[in-house]
Amino acid sequence: MSDDDLTPFLEVATMMAEAARCVVRPWFRRGISVSDKADESPVTIADRTAERVMRAILAERLPDHGVFGEEFGLANDAARYRWLLDPVDGTRAFVTGRPLFGTLIALLRDGQPVLGVIDQPVLQERWIGVAGQPTRFVSPLGGSPVTRSCARLADAELSCTSPEMLESAPHERWKTLKARARRMTWGGDCYAYGLLALGQVDLIAECDMNPWDWAALVPVIEGAGGKITAWDGSPLRLDGDRTVLAAGDAALHAEAVRTLAGHD
Amino acid sequence: MSDDDLTPFLEVATMMAEAARCVVRPWFRRGISVSDKADESPVTIADRTAERVMRAILAERLPDHGVFGEEFGLANDAARYRWLLDPVDGTRAFVTGRPLFGTLIALLRDGQPVLGVIDQPVLQERWIGVAGQPTRFVSPLGGSPVTRSCARLADAELSCTSPEMLESAPHERWKTLKARARRMTWGGDCYAYGLLALGQVDLIAECDMNPWDWAALVPVIEGAGGKITAWDGSPLRLDGDRTVLAAGDAALHAEAVRTLAGHD
Repeated sequence: MSDDDLTPFLEVATMMAEAARCVVRPWFRRGISVSDKADESPVTIADRTAERVMRAILAERLPDHGVFGEEFGLANDAARYRWLLDPVDGTRAFVTGRPLFGTLIALLRDGQPVLGVIDQPVLQERWIGVAGQPTRFVSPLGGSPVTRSCARLADAELSCTSPEMLESAPHERWKTLKARARRMTWGGDCYAYGLLALGQVDLIAECDMNPWDWAALVPVIEGAGGKITAWDGSPLRLDGDRTVLAAGDAALHAEAVRTLAGHD
Repeated sequence: MSDDDLTPFLEVATMMAEAARCVVRPWFRRGISVSDKADESPVTIADRTAERVMRAILAERLPDHGVFGEEFGLANDAARYRWLLDPVDGTRAFVTGRPLFGTLIALLRDGQPVLGVIDQPVLQERWIGVAGQPTRFVSPLGGSPVTRSCARLADAELSCTSPEMLESAPHERWKTLKARARRMTWGGDCYAYGLLALGQVDLIAECDMNPWDWAALVPVIEGAGGKITAWDGSPLRLDGDRTVLAAGDAALHAEAVRTLAGHD
């Protein structure tokens, strides 16, 4: 297999996303008493079961690959190909009944994300990104996976998961970014990156992000014509500063990097 | 017709919600350049067309009723029965491609909301509230329209549309409410009240709310077993202070009123 033929891996990723849907969906909006906190909440069960199911598929189909998931840790870390799994990205959305969480599946080759899937199990929407290929989008709601032209921050629709997340930002410059953007919307997790890939949102600035939160997003955003890096404009790295800056338009991305760096 | 027979009006409200869906849905995630600001954005067209369509139905079926909508103003204000229409509540959700906005239809009798519909045109979810009756919920996503028991603020899932909305709060006590709640989620508009009626969210505190933002919510929340008032615990009024406090559990509502009043 050449370096570039990711087709067989995409087939496995698709199977994993389908299987994760099947086990996550029944736990959504499941009645729960507020006293059922702790370990056995529906989201915890959904998360754990989906990770198990995806690992079982990998064990059968690609046993030599590495895999990391939050619940069951790391396996085969020295492999050239490693999968990063996040069965329920957007726990807050899940537990409050908002169908905007997502299942994230990423494949790293030599540490670089080359394949990424964002799947929304309830709405049955799926973004599929493969390095060097146009992003694909399958959804009953429609939409085309192409980012929107928006060269100036003053025209940009900015999004971020929560103000609380930004309390851990490395510096306060995101407030300047917010003040200069056209508008700001809160909420979204991985789904907001899917919306950026659909040309519905122009810019996302977040921090405190783990590799399994961002790895799947990279091929999706890049394959839709967008740019995704750390806040300083450098490529996202597994040992990076945990910031993520995504834009649909390269000129807007550059302005956001300058703004976040205080160069204006 | 007796005072309590709202069935014929519910039939008209349902027809209005169905018609609004038809004209709103095609504008969702419609490609739009960021330079197309101002008047003719998809959300503006959707909003205006849906209001026109709903008014046309009222003009035909209930010509003696009053009606108010943001776009086309007030008609027949002295009528005993008056409709309040908000075709797209949650503009920010709509314009960023999040299917969590809603169409709100409320009927006031002698100034009191006696019928309310929350409709999500894209997901095809609908909450129907009629004074004195259990709330109904129709959705492909499932769920039961019954609020959840949650007597204590410390256990409560709190929701609010945006931190920006609370900048106009009448006082800073909502920060105490947030600090004492178990967790806080941002985003939602009318959809969050629907989630409260489904027992997914326990408490919502918002301000700067117009009557067409809250009137439809009252029968939905009350018919699901919840309580909805102003922040001070008094009934919502057309000429009130524009605050809204909704809880799934009466004991939690009382604690929230005390907290917002500074009585703790």
